[in-house]
Amino acid sequence: MDKHPYKTLSSRIVWSCPWYSVRQDEIVTPDGKQGVYNTVTKQNAVWIVPVTEAGEIVLIHNYRYTVDSWCWEVPAGGIKPGQTALETAVAELREEIGGTAVHMQLINQFYLSNGFCDEVGTIFLAAGVKLNQPTEHEPTEVMTIHTFPAATALHMARTGEITDAPSALALFMCEPFLDIKAS
Amino acid sequence: MDKHPYKTLSSRIVWSCPWYSVRQDEIVTPDGKQGVYNTVTKQNAVWIVPVTEAGEIVLIHNYRYTVDSWCWEVPAGGIKPGQTALETAVAELREEIGGTAVHMQLINQFYLSNGFCDEVGTIFLAAGVKLNQPTEHEPTEVMTIHTFPAATALHMARTGEITDAPSALALFMCEPFLDIKAS
Repeated sequence: MDKHPYKTLSSRIVWSCPWYSVRQDEIVTPDGKQGVYNTVTKQNAVWIVPVTEAGEIVLIHNYRYTVDSWCWEVPAGGIKPGQTALETAVAELREEIGGTAVHMQLINQFYLSNGFCDEVGTIFLAAGVKLNQPTEHEPTEVMTIHTFPAATALHMARTGEITDAPSALALFMCEPFLDIKAS
Repeated sequence: MDKHPYKTLSSRIVWSCPWYSVRQDEIVTPDGKQGVYNTVTKQNAVWIVPVTEAGEIVLIHNYRYTVDSWCWEVPAGGIKPGQTALETAVAELREEIGGTAVHMQLINQFYLSNGFCDEVGTIFLAAGVKLNQPTEHEPTEVMTIHTFPAATALHMARTGEITDAPSALALFMCEPFLDIKAS
């Protein structure tokens, strides 16, 4: 199986803004035909599942302009140039929910939407979280902070109440590490 | 809590291709500041977890140009204008893996990447799947078809071997409906 079955003939940025760009590549598909592939190129990001000392999970209720909807999410954010994923996770935990963690565990990485976008997400489990710092929200961030038993947060993911795919995925990926008490 | 905390002053398409567009809105954020929000507007899509009569799961091994990587995925595809999500699920199951289902169960819906894109994904569980039809792959689709015990497919999602976020999420969402035999 060919590891790289497409050939790239040329590549140029056809649109960009401070948050992402569109890269247009001239390609040759495996059947030898020439075509165009447009990729949204974007900063990578982290999603953090914050688990308190009592084993509860902190979620944010977040307004999302793109879908005009309030979404339950775990803290998340883009990795700034020069920052590591871990540094971003530590910073976003503090900025979004005022949290500090005893330990930050790397859980996994995933592609958010590999059909059109190159973004990679990294999932962390933040253990022993205390909500003891001031939050620092950006002007575009409209959110409130809520704490749930781990079983409740997982139930919200399972039933689709958590509509944000990366947040639901992060909770499922962290499930084996959580103390799920039957309610 | 304000249901729609942003005001939209104007809206225009600033870039587009046959698969998606970028819409640039002039907005007023909740703190009264004027700004710009760019949204990738995209056709919605479906992800289908195909479960065979023997309770096994069919995955595709799929080359993704955006990330230059071979990814394990469930069958998926964009909803064409005039098509329902269910019709797309039935069509993609046949086109991508040559499958027909006895029953197609709507599991849930989610936002793929609500920070910058408006795409909604719908998850179906396809039950009683038979691989008895010819596949119809598009020239850009380079994939092979594989069948795994349900426990193995879930394990691949759990360990991050399935790097495609919507596919892993779809498997987790379908887990309560699967016959997971301890291996």
